[in-house]
Amino acid sequence: MNSFGNQFRLTTFGESHGPAVGGVVDGCPAGIVIDHDFITEELRRRREGDDICAKELTTRHESDLVEWLSGLKDGITLGTPLSFIIKNTDCRSEDYESLRDLCRPGHADYTYSEKYGIRDHRGGGRASGRETVVRVVAGALAKQILRGKGITFHSSYHDHEVCCTINGIPTGVGSPIFDRLNARLAFAMLSIPSAMAFAMGDTPDAFRLPQQEYPDQWQPHGKDDTLTFTNHCGGIQGGISNGMPIVFHVGFHLPPTQPDGMTCRDNNGNLHHVAPHGRHDYNHISRLPVIVESMAAMALLDLTLQQQTQSHP
Amino acid sequence: MNSFGNQFRLTTFGESHGPAVGGVVDGCPAGIVIDHDFITEELRRRREGDDICAKELTTRHESDLVEWLSGLKDGITLGTPLSFIIKNTDCRSEDYESLRDLCRPGHADYTYSEKYGIRDHRGGGRASGRETVVRVVAGALAKQILRGKGITFHSSYHDHEVCCTINGIPTGVGSPIFDRLNARLAFAMLSIPSAMAFAMGDTPDAFRLPQQEYPDQWQPHGKDDTLTFTNHCGGIQGGISNGMPIVFHVGFHLPPTQPDGMTCRDNNGNLHHVAPHGRHDYNHISRLPVIVESMAAMALLDLTLQQQTQSHP
Amino acid sequence: MNSFGNQFRLTTFGESHGPAVGGVVDGCPAGIVIDHDFITEELRRRREGDDICAKELTTRHESDLVEWLSGLKDGITLGTPLSFIIKNTDCRSEDYESLRDLCRPGHADYTYSEKYGIRDHRGGGRASGRETVVRVVAGALAKQILRGKGITFHSSYHDHEVCCTINGIPTGVGSPIFDRLNARLAFAMLSIPSAMAFAMGDTPDAFRLPQQEYPDQWQPHGKDDTLTFTNHCGGIQGGISNGMPIVFHVGFHLPPTQPDGMTCRDNNGNLHHVAPHGRHDYNHISRLPVIVESMAAMALLDLTLQQQTQSHP
Amino acid sequence: MNSFGNQFRLTTFGESHGPAVGGVVDGCPAGIVIDHDFITEELRRRREGDDICAKELTTRHESDLVEWLSGLKDGITLGTPLSFIIKNTDCRSEDYESLRDLCRPGHADYTYSEKYGIRDHRGGGRASGRETVVRVVAGALAKQILRGKGITFHSSYHDHEVCCTINGIPTGVGSPIFDRLNARLAFAMLSIPSAMAFAMGDTPDAFRLPQQEYPDQWQPHGKDDTLTFTNHCGGIQGGISNGMPIVFHVGFHLPPTQPDGMTCRDNNGNLHHVAPHGRHDYNHISRLPVIVESMAAMALLDLTLQQQTQSHP
Repeated sequence: MNSFGNQFRLTTFGESHGPAVGGVVDGCPAGIVIDHDFITEELRRRREGDDICAKELTTRHESDLVEWLSGLKDGITLGTPLSFIIKNTDCRSEDYESLRDLCRPGHADYTYSEKYGIRDHRGGGRASGRETVVRVVAGALAKQILRGKGITFHSSYHDHEVCCTINGIPTGVGSPIFDRLNARLAFAMLSIPSAMAFAMGDTPDAFRLPQQEYPDQWQPHGKDDTLTFTNHCGGIQGGISNGMPIVFHVGFHLPPTQPDGMTCRDNNGNLHHVAPHGRHDYNHISRLPVIVESMAAMALLDLTLQQQTQSHP
Repeated sequence: MNSFGNQFRLTTFGESHGPAVGGVVDGCPAGIVIDHDFITEELRRRREGDDICAKELTTRHESDLVEWLSGLKDGITLGTPLSFIIKNTDCRSEDYESLRDLCRPGHADYTYSEKYGIRDHRGGGRASGRETVVRVVAGALAKQILRGKGITFHSSYHDHEVCCTINGIPTGVGSPIFDRLNARLAFAMLSIPSAMAFAMGDTPDAFRLPQQEYPDQWQPHGKDDTLTFTNHCGGIQGGISNGMPIVFHVGFHLPPTQPDGMTCRDNNGNLHHVAPHGRHDYNHISRLPVIVESMAAMALLDLTLQQQTQSHP
Repeated sequence: MNSFGNQFRLTTFGESHGPAVGGVVDGCPAGIVIDHDFITEELRRRREGDDICAKELTTRHESDLVEWLSGLKDGITLGTPLSFIIKNTDCRSEDYESLRDLCRPGHADYTYSEKYGIRDHRGGGRASGRETVVRVVAGALAKQILRGKGITFHSSYHDHEVCCTINGIPTGVGSPIFDRLNARLAFAMLSIPSAMAFAMGDTPDAFRLPQQEYPDQWQPHGKDDTLTFTNHCGGIQGGISNGMPIVFHVGFHLPPTQPDGMTCRDNNGNLHHVAPHGRHDYNHISRLPVIVESMAAMALLDLTLQQQTQSHP
Repeated sequence: MNSFGNQFRLTTFGESHGPAVGGVVDGCPAGIVIDHDFITEELRRRREGDDICAKELTTRHESDLVEWLSGLKDGITLGTPLSFIIKNTDCRSEDYESLRDLCRPGHADYTYSEKYGIRDHRGGGRASGRETVVRVVAGALAKQILRGKGITFHSSYHDHEVCCTINGIPTGVGSPIFDRLNARLAFAMLSIPSAMAFAMGDTPDAFRLPQQEYPDQWQPHGKDDTLTFTNHCGGIQGGISNGMPIVFHVGFHLPPTQPDGMTCRDNNGNLHHVAPHGRHDYNHISRLPVIVESMAAMALLDLTLQQQTQSHP
């Protein structure tokens, strides 16, 4: 539903033009001094796409002020649920009035209406990029905890894909069969709006390598990030991390909102051309690396905590 | 861990050279007459790869006789857990004696040893393609139930990828935010041994379409499989099915076992060349379509049952 | 952790003297017009214990103003997560300063400190009756939905026990073996602060009946609430509702806070007598019926939604 | 459904007169040498009730031979799912032929029929005490693991109640709010067939103590099992263990099967007197202590493993 993770679990809530978006983090270990500067920096990374394309005042300015409601005392985690909200400001809901009964192409308008029989048409409602701000806050917290274990993230965007590399993962994270680390990462990535593809390995097409090239060959006396010569498997064998960097790629489609208007569907199946309007995330692409890292961090922290229950005595 | 799904949940168990592999299906609706012929046919599809490459007697013959232990009365499901085992026969565990303390490249030997401190080296133990026979049995059951709702599966394999198409899915299946239908499918697919990539859409590179081509345009008065002209989104918008066919691709690497031997790693990091031996699944590729369909069927049935709790009154 | 339920899931957050307490309800069906008056009435039932004993100004006045943050449009549920907060006002945290490093007898001070290494000493922190206000809001919502299905709640408090009766439950709710309706109710009740005992049946000692009296005898042609002559089993057989009223008892200990002061433990195990201070819930007992009903309603709604996935075709 | 626990999870399957009953244990740590003698001894404790009342050959003799199917190599756990079956022998299904279309009073016959529309009438089907043999096998494994941590179990049966005491639990096990250790124990106990009541504390009526007696007073410099003078709270404060012994009581009704026959209900609501027949567990009471301990051990091990993910750094 609206929760992600088992041991470190984020539950998100909020519509784009409602009072606020927010999240509850359950399972965060106690005794951590939250690095608010880092959270602010991560939120800035998410926002910079807006700033880049905000030459004209057509893009919503999200102030992203995080209000913490629980789980902290003097800035230190208590082990109880951390909750926070980010109020929605600078909404111009009236811009969406003409879309009240129309479904845009390439958006979730139609499926929400069919599934729930009701939807909040303002700014995409729940199905808005706005919700990802919550993931970035919780992801920053997960990254901070992992950083304390020597685990770091790096990602870049090029040609519709984000390549993400995670260094410092110990061996043994992930479970065989279903809860594989690669399956969890794929689940996490495909939960990001506009994500369409996922691939493990040091190239997006690693799986197309011929049989004699595929298996990563052992380095003599290699261990951790020197275990193998190549990293075609992306640091995961049998669903479990092998100590090499975790490397994967995610493919995203471009935003469906189009500058020259669009043809929408009403409830009777009739089509209507709608001129451009509202303020949309034309450049949401540059937001993606920090969101990818946030989701990867939560998935990894969750399985790392899980691994603490499984290690052999 | 070793369970898949919430409402329709498969738990698998068993090592390749242990007494048996098997599964427990919890949440299967009561009153269903199990189609044993269909299960047998699906198992045959999984086995035919072996038959094709079995010119020499180097490939293990799996008889795949399913013994049902519970949940049935006169062949009808009781609503209680269905359990079944498939005994492991024709094992030549002695073939693996030389691998007792060695880790093969491209296999899960190293990560299992590091995670658990112990592993069953015989035939890959738990990390063997053998486990997928259990998924096919449970998947056939899920496909039978979905078939009764008019949902059918088709898949093909070409150039390292399986393209899978599912027809007849009603609108409204899947949840927004995290439990998206596409995210669940990605999770299901990456849980298949040797799967490395997943992509939604009517082409593996649908996400690379230019902005003006990406959004699938509405057909006037379209509905279900005539909703849009194209299906670049693969039948899912905002994580929820829109009534168009579900289309996705999965990329698999070739089997790491190599005919001319391999260089293995011992516990001290020293390397050893090992000549070819044992019987392996050189041709496991032709097994993949039925496994892909089985996992997709279980994911879809699970979310379809889940949808019964969420529909608007 | 801090979530209750699967299909209808409440996650709570908040400390007694933090900025707010609140909750997220995931899985609430769409299209429901929330009955705010009923929620207000339920909150009043929870508060009336305070009012009764508030002759002197020693008891905290909780205004309990519910602010809804998401999941609603024009007062109608969207199917997305409902979230709400209740700000903490009228806190006198300074009253608790003397308890900063002391553990009171009969409270959770010691166990929180030992488990988390840190705790919020102000007003009990997370382990305060304050958290139950969140359960009452979500429980009122669950009761409203169940009321629409003809299910009603009645409870009373006498001699340390609450007897709760639920009428109108259809047959078939609950699962055999582990997720029994009675086991879920026991879990729900023992999660209420100060709950110590749970018993099914039309008397708290129904299990002590002699063998010839225990089994409820069938009424000829009985059905639903006329199924059996007696209701010693409390409406549940084999973990599944039989259509008779659900009847159970819960036992609560009295509040551990004592008017004449108490002997507390410091971190070194030394004891200190502390004079009475702060404002406490001396009369929390009269709050209990509405909390019992709230938890029972959420447990029942959850299993009722679950049942929609399990019914025979 | 048919699974219990999160980190250490038992899934059970099997009908009383089907081919077998069995279980899958997921999450058992690797590297444990299974103590088969202890399992056999625990199964003997469960069976001894039969032996006591087997003066005449009217009671089913369960041989309880455990066949392990997976998760072991040379008797050592691999970290993969442990699965086992116990074949059903000495069934006289024909004894139940007259009950095919009748519902006995005090049994689950009626609710199974209503819920599933089908049921296995032979020997109670799934709703038979037979299923508890699976819990005892998995519980013995949990007890063995806990024994290695210094945790031991003792229980006794008197006047319809079992009192169970668990020594050696460290502080900090259990979570506040919903997943309280006492709530989990209540859930575990009420999942046992014929359980009707649960109470924490060193007396079944601890919750009736007057206000000045209830709170357990600290011992000067007390710790673990010397923490407090009394143990009215049963070793749990705020849902978390405090180091004192865990003490609770469970109330069970007597077996509903009556020696002088019973009045059954057919599908039309007509009543029929049925003479005594079949072989039933008249004396199942003496089986209860080992089943109570088994469920308690699984609940505790699960939360103990969970605690490993939550401890402060």
